[in-house]
Amino acid sequence: MIAQLPVTAADIDAAASVLAPVAVRTPLISSPALDALTGGRIFLKAEVLQRTGSFKFRGAYNRLSAIPASVRGAGVVAFSSGNHAQGVAAAAQLFGMAATIVMPADAPVSKRERTKSYGAEVVLYDRLREDREAIAGEIAAGRGATVIRPYDDPLIIAGQGTAGREICEELAVRGIAPDIVVAPASGGGLVAGTAVAVKSRFPHAAVMSAEPEGYDDHARSLAAGHRVAHGASEPTICDALMAQIPGEITFAINGALLKQGVTATDVEVGRAVAFAFRELKLVVEPGGAVALAALLAGRFAVKDRAVVIVLSGGNVDADLYTRLIA
Amino acid sequence: MIAQLPVTAADIDAAASVLAPVAVRTPLISSPALDALTGGRIFLKAEVLQRTGSFKFRGAYNRLSAIPASVRGAGVVAFSSGNHAQGVAAAAQLFGMAATIVMPADAPVSKRERTKSYGAEVVLYDRLREDREAIAGEIAAGRGATVIRPYDDPLIIAGQGTAGREICEELAVRGIAPDIVVAPASGGGLVAGTAVAVKSRFPHAAVMSAEPEGYDDHARSLAAGHRVAHGASEPTICDALMAQIPGEITFAINGALLKQGVTATDVEVGRAVAFAFRELKLVVEPGGAVALAALLAGRFAVKDRAVVIVLSGGNVDADLYTRLIA
Repeated sequence: MIAQLPVTAADIDAAASVLAPVAVRTPLISSPALDALTGGRIFLKAEVLQRTGSFKFRGAYNRLSAIPASVRGAGVVAFSSGNHAQGVAAAAQLFGMAATIVMPADAPVSKRERTKSYGAEVVLYDRLREDREAIAGEIAAGRGATVIRPYDDPLIIAGQGTAGREICEELAVRGIAPDIVVAPASGGGLVAGTAVAVKSRFPHAAVMSAEPEGYDDHARSLAAGHRVAHGASEPTICDALMAQIPGEITFAINGALLKQGVTATDVEVGRAVAFAFRELKLVVEPGGAVALAALLAGRFAVKDRAVVIVLSGGNVDADLYTRLIA
Repeated sequence: MIAQLPVTAADIDAAASVLAPVAVRTPLISSPALDALTGGRIFLKAEVLQRTGSFKFRGAYNRLSAIPASVRGAGVVAFSSGNHAQGVAAAAQLFGMAATIVMPADAPVSKRERTKSYGAEVVLYDRLREDREAIAGEIAAGRGATVIRPYDDPLIIAGQGTAGREICEELAVRGIAPDIVVAPASGGGLVAGTAVAVKSRFPHAAVMSAEPEGYDDHARSLAAGHRVAHGASEPTICDALMAQIPGEITFAINGALLKQGVTATDVEVGRAVAFAFRELKLVVEPGGAVALAALLAGRFAVKDRAVVIVLSGGNVDADLYTRLIA
């Protein structure tokens, strides 16, 4: 079944070769404190330690590597709330390409500043009134630049899947087969790539998406069997996880491979961020902590099971972080 | 030369076997951002991810494992500003032994609370007016308990040295010989054990101690060739690094193996803590960040060199952390 999906294990192997010289092979971390608390055997895939502070660099670099030399000079354009922005900007810098990033005006300041620090031009838009895809499309059309989509692109998904591939390799070295793997989902690229990698190697593992309560379009879509938008109107502290509906390509994968979607409230996410500060000594942003939050909130049974939790990003403003760890 | 020191590579190998089932094999983390900033090839030994949030668990568990069964029932007593306290408490809990920890009344609240969370009894003392060794000695004598010294004990040093052993193994896998290895020093157990492990495998590596400015008893002692106390009277934010003079056993090792001592000011340490938050996504306490601070402050030349920085602990109160990352 996996061989017929839009992204295969071979695509992820190829992405791993592309990424090997530049990406951080992030550690899979054990925490005796977390094991004692949950009764499971928990492994944390610390993508907060990835270049740019989130997994997004993986997909962005893999995608940019495939841009033909003839059009590289026109640069790239992306739209993103912040982590994809940094991933694309950092990858473009490594390839010597110009990058323009369309970001919401209310994105965390640190994400905006860090995106600029990689040499990208940042164009702000109003999240409520303007269409970021249209803005990015116009900019790209004017320059002949390549648009780098945040998730609905097989090369992006394959790049994110290298995180799942590393999880499998690390577990295999330790002689462990995972029972459960949970990754945060916005458009669903990370969990889709991870699912392909994990299910190829460990077909019996249950792979799940984690989302903020209300922004549960993956949970709803998986339950319905087709793509459904979330119904959230309130904001969430998980700025990275606000996509309205699963991607078409990502859901072609996630619909086939994921067991279910789990959620956590903003309060639970805040507690998970504080737990990671206090007990894990890892800086995790709210969106990056949602799978951990679901674990800590007991959203799925883990007793005596080998469970992998992906901590997908750590780009959080100091003032919000301060409030969450207080 | 190393074979004649109070702790040998064989002792560290033995400690590694003792620790294998219980200690976290902490990752050696690369940071492209740090490499770009310094011009060196930097590897971070993240002991913040160790059980109890610092390297201290290694030595404590190794030492407790050697207590004869006949006296285990009387428990252990230790004096510590907080990280050794947690290491001993957590190790004692694993061995099913009672632990009493003598801590200064001004130790960070989180260190006190975490020590209690491992089931230890905490006895507070006045850092300025009372002698913690005398208090611990009295308690131990009354019960027949074993005193677990914080650093001046070959089994403690060998346990801490397993961090250095892991550094060597990880670098060897990557085909890299370290030019420089820097670890924080208070009594000097961590840097001594690390030096034995590193110099056994990589004799040309320069191993250095890092201390807060003013609390530079290792730097002074290494320069003088014999143990010299520091002259600090002002407090430092590095609560974990306030020992007044190098240990006798640790300095028998450090005097023979260390190249020099480096220092960083409290302001530089604060910047390093904030850098670790922002760029590395690791929670590092001030004392745990002093080697990183010395690196960032340019205290030693790293251009084109392979440099290992030990981040030795991450137990910091939220309110101090908030001030440092602001």
